[in-house]
Amino acid sequence: MFAFLRRLLFGAPIETKRQIHERLPKFLALPVFASDAVSSVAYGPQEILIPLMVVGSITWGISLPIAAAIAILIAIVAFSYRQTIYAYPHGGGSYIVSRENLGLYAGLTAAASILTDYVLTVAVSVSAGVDAFVSAYPHYAQWRVELCVLAVGVVAFANLRGLRESGALFAGPTYAFIISLYTLVIFGFLKLVFGPHPEPIIKNYDQCLQQIGHGMPHALTLMLVLRSFSSGCSALTGIEAIADGVPAFKPPESKNAATTMGIMATILATLVLSISYLAYAFKALPGAGLVEHGLTNVPNYEHFKNQTLVSMIAENVFGRSWFYFVIQWATAAILILAANTAFQDFPRLSSILARDRCAPRQLANIGDRLVYSNGIALLSFFAIALLVLFRGHTTALIPLYAVGVFISFTLSQAGMYRRLRRLKGPKWRLHSAISLIGSVITGCVALIIAVTKFAIGAWIVILIIPSVVFLFHKIRQHYLELGDQLRITDFKAVPTIKTTAIVLTAGIHQGVLPALLYARTLSHDCRALYIEIDPNETPLVRERWEKLNLDMPLVILESQYRSVIGPVLDYLEEAKKERPGHVVTVVLPEFVPKKWWHKALHNQSALMLKIALLFKKDIVVTNVRYYLEK
Amino acid sequence: MFAFLRRLLFGAPIETKRQIHERLPKFLALPVFASDAVSSVAYGPQEILIPLMVVGSITWGISLPIAAAIAILIAIVAFSYRQTIYAYPHGGGSYIVSRENLGLYAGLTAAASILTDYVLTVAVSVSAGVDAFVSAYPHYAQWRVELCVLAVGVVAFANLRGLRESGALFAGPTYAFIISLYTLVIFGFLKLVFGPHPEPIIKNYDQCLQQIGHGMPHALTLMLVLRSFSSGCSALTGIEAIADGVPAFKPPESKNAATTMGIMATILATLVLSISYLAYAFKALPGAGLVEHGLTNVPNYEHFKNQTLVSMIAENVFGRSWFYFVIQWATAAILILAANTAFQDFPRLSSILARDRCAPRQLANIGDRLVYSNGIALLSFFAIALLVLFRGHTTALIPLYAVGVFISFTLSQAGMYRRLRRLKGPKWRLHSAISLIGSVITGCVALIIAVTKFAIGAWIVILIIPSVVFLFHKIRQHYLELGDQLRITDFKAVPTIKTTAIVLTAGIHQGVLPALLYARTLSHDCRALYIEIDPNETPLVRERWEKLNLDMPLVILESQYRSVIGPVLDYLEEAKKERPGHVVTVVLPEFVPKKWWHKALHNQSALMLKIALLFKKDIVVTNVRYYLEK
Repeated sequence: MFAFLRRLLFGAPIETKRQIHERLPKFLALPVFASDAVSSVAYGPQEILIPLMVVGSITWGISLPIAAAIAILIAIVAFSYRQTIYAYPHGGGSYIVSRENLGLYAGLTAAASILTDYVLTVAVSVSAGVDAFVSAYPHYAQWRVELCVLAVGVVAFANLRGLRESGALFAGPTYAFIISLYTLVIFGFLKLVFGPHPEPIIKNYDQCLQQIGHGMPHALTLMLVLRSFSSGCSALTGIEAIADGVPAFKPPESKNAATTMGIMATILATLVLSISYLAYAFKALPGAGLVEHGLTNVPNYEHFKNQTLVSMIAENVFGRSWFYFVIQWATAAILILAANTAFQDFPRLSSILARDRCAPRQLANIGDRLVYSNGIALLSFFAIALLVLFRGHTTALIPLYAVGVFISFTLSQAGMYRRLRRLKGPKWRLHSAISLIGSVITGCVALIIAVTKFAIGAWIVILIIPSVVFLFHKIRQHYLELGDQLRITDFKAVPTIKTTAIVLTAGIHQGVLPALLYARTLSHDCRALYIEIDPNETPLVRERWEKLNLDMPLVILESQYRSVIGPVLDYLEEAKKERPGHVVTVVLPEFVPKKWWHKALHNQSALMLKIALLFKKDIVVTNVRYYLEK
Repeated sequence: MFAFLRRLLFGAPIETKRQIHERLPKFLALPVFASDAVSSVAYGPQEILIPLMVVGSITWGISLPIAAAIAILIAIVAFSYRQTIYAYPHGGGSYIVSRENLGLYAGLTAAASILTDYVLTVAVSVSAGVDAFVSAYPHYAQWRVELCVLAVGVVAFANLRGLRESGALFAGPTYAFIISLYTLVIFGFLKLVFGPHPEPIIKNYDQCLQQIGHGMPHALTLMLVLRSFSSGCSALTGIEAIADGVPAFKPPESKNAATTMGIMATILATLVLSISYLAYAFKALPGAGLVEHGLTNVPNYEHFKNQTLVSMIAENVFGRSWFYFVIQWATAAILILAANTAFQDFPRLSSILARDRCAPRQLANIGDRLVYSNGIALLSFFAIALLVLFRGHTTALIPLYAVGVFISFTLSQAGMYRRLRRLKGPKWRLHSAISLIGSVITGCVALIIAVTKFAIGAWIVILIIPSVVFLFHKIRQHYLELGDQLRITDFKAVPTIKTTAIVLTAGIHQGVLPALLYARTLSHDCRALYIEIDPNETPLVRERWEKLNLDMPLVILESQYRSVIGPVLDYLEEAKKERPGHVVTVVLPEFVPKKWWHKALHNQSALMLKIALLFKKDIVVTNVRYYLEK
């Protein structure tokens, strides 16, 4: 029944030998690995703006240098990761690179960071996807949390059914997104250059920025710039994905992967820069920022409050034409695919951790459909918890994001630095210098994010990462100790054991016969035990026992307090002392009624006894069932 | 731990031999057996009034003849029950009398009726007790339901601890109640006779009754009189208690019991009559009636709305003096004792039914403290459910009450009639005529209650009683069939059985060694079974197995779908076919971790397998545990 339901929902089991690997050409590898990173364009530029909105109009242009800094950071990280791609042609995730070159705990820290980040990737991508959808269909804004949970549920379900990261699935939405955003950027620039002087999107843009700035004595602080920069760094998440997946490329794997990485970084950097510039030129402010700063006096506030920055720009350039809806649907789709990437990576990394004995081994179990079902379930649980807790607000989730990614960037590149210096290959000085610079810069960024976002959410992640590392440590310790205990050191010294069988009889009837007969096969030292609760019944029991003539003693024990369990436990202790070295087997006759409600009509003393015996050593409990036919 | 908590809460277990019987002299037997019946005075007269309040002042005096009719009914029932007392000196509850003389199903109907009635006794007594308390302390009115649940909880707890129906416990509150009510009645009459013309308690008594009567075209219908009479019949509940408990009297038991019955009936009848008369004379209307009929225009409505009839009369006669509070506390106390009586009788009767195989046998289990704990728990559950459902309103519960009692009166006396006619003792014609009259009259009353109260609650009980009888029937059927199946008919033809032992090994290590060694003691046909999930591990397993040199084959099965359970089940089916007549013993090695959280780090495949094997015949499952030390 349960098996049938499971089959209906998740499909028939798949044979192990069907676990094949798809080799992807570059034009299909790009969408598979880039969806996570490129989709960040949907929220990155808008998150740069939101912290700056408190500063007021005079300092407004600052968003452009910040976007440029992020573009440079993208280039540095991508360049540095190319080295990892060449060094680890079989896949060099930050866990593997850090563990191999910096030691176990660096590896576990990287793993904890990146796992936390996968959870946030799901949460942020899904909430940003819902933002894109709500921009186009504002009536659904009230169902934001429900839509988020639904999206996670659908992606989790597809993954439990064994969805593969097929190029075909990813190509459509990813290319649709890239092409439509470039189209938007090109038409946007054309409108700026050839069109009339553009109307500001937010009509009272200058006044309302002054209004926010009013309360601030210092117009622009370093803290605010860094905070804006930190938010923008969320655009870098997912950039490392190609390094993990080198073996999926067609040969020459590393070269193809490195080229793809370059293309991806270029797309990401140019789009972040262009969208930031268009927002500045068209005087757009993201709806989430209007709400956060309480700018209800903006004309058309109701129209804008649910819109993303990309939606506003697209609306300004194309109006609410069909192409506007293409952009919104493509954005929502690529963001869901980004969440899907985390659903592939989180279970895979946790299964590697489980195989390395740092995570519960159930995470390495491969389910019926050749997927790590437990990892998928765990990720869904955490992502849904986050989305519900933060009410599906992307901007609220951003401070938690990116810390983990940058910690893992730092560790991974520090690992590469150590490796390159150790191996001393051709041009090792140059290469190790690149890794060192990458590591130092990403380390500084991690620090900046941690400090500037600490109070508004980053502390959660900063608390969680060491806790998870500690948990990994404790789990590893347990498994190592377990291994020590279980190892058979002396294969010659296997002892023999003997058993004493004791059958508990509540009376002499057909129901206990199978148990008695079974016990007789177990051992020559075999007894039946009867607990006397009503002394009037004892003679009848004795008489029937003699009639049975089973060649086995019947022990009758009085129970002063009418309890079965107490006298049985006492008797078993004695039996153990009587024959040291013997294992005592308690044979429990058990009725299995025909109808479920009949269960309520029988004493559950067998069950109670089983629970009581659960913690007794050297006692084996055997249930011999008797099936009632009526 | 659990045992310690239980001991702390309920006390140490009591030895079976301490189950002694107290013999009561009449002056102690009266309070023990009469508390249930006599306590009805607290709500009986007021319930007579409430239905009549719709009729208007002109017909007001009608409450007195109704009270007189109830007093006569008390006399008839008591007189008729005296015969039962003499006929059944060992206790003649209506179940026993009906079953013995009218057959099984009449007995079960009486039992179902009286059990339902015990539940209602608890609910009505507790709610009326809370009414008495709230009359004196109206601030607690908002906590009515909570107070009711608390009271049931306390009584249940005391009974689970093994409270005995000791004369000492009952004497205080019962005599306090009887004496204080007689004092109230005497002082009330003195005030009427010697005092000035009494002020009406309800100042606009005549007007407000006219106001209610206004909507009624027919001033007084037979239906209303009968409904009022039916409500008053609730005063008769508990009157049969003495007949059940004859053995508790000092010898000559029957004579003493009959005398006590006479005294009790006299007290009950006189108090019902007197309270009804005083209410009429002082122009009192019960608070529950004012609320039900919406008489908010009564002066001092807020003061009266939470008061019982007895409280109003007592306040009128004594003011809010100390004696008023004595009356209220004594009323509350005797009502709680009445509930306690049901807590003694319900578990006792259900244990008799369980012993007669008409109820789940757990109801006959005697707990640590020599009480039928399961019956006590069941009664508490139902009573609390009723109190919560009816928000603790006595008047709402009354329509459910008394139907059951009168059905059991009718059956019990019909049984007596049959018995007296069969035995033909001295004066059998007279005696049987008395029983017949009693039976016919109580039968008519049962019918009157059922008809007049049908729509406002009695239908629930009329639905429940046959359902319970049907349930008794099905349970009896199951136990009888069970007995047939379990009976050993041929003691000579006991077969021998042989077993095939199969050990499931997930690997070759210390953890499975005990299971392997244990299996070897079970049978010569003994195998180890290894399910191959990762083919790379198989050679290592094979090598270790050979090193172990256990003289037992190792069967290795491939698992196409990575599932352990499927291949195991298939293999067991084959093994069963291979050796027909053999019982297959599946030996499951099980880890017992040292720390609770370690449990989460192990696969639960042993548990899953156990569940999967639960419904397989001819398979015995044995767990051999291995205790981890770290």
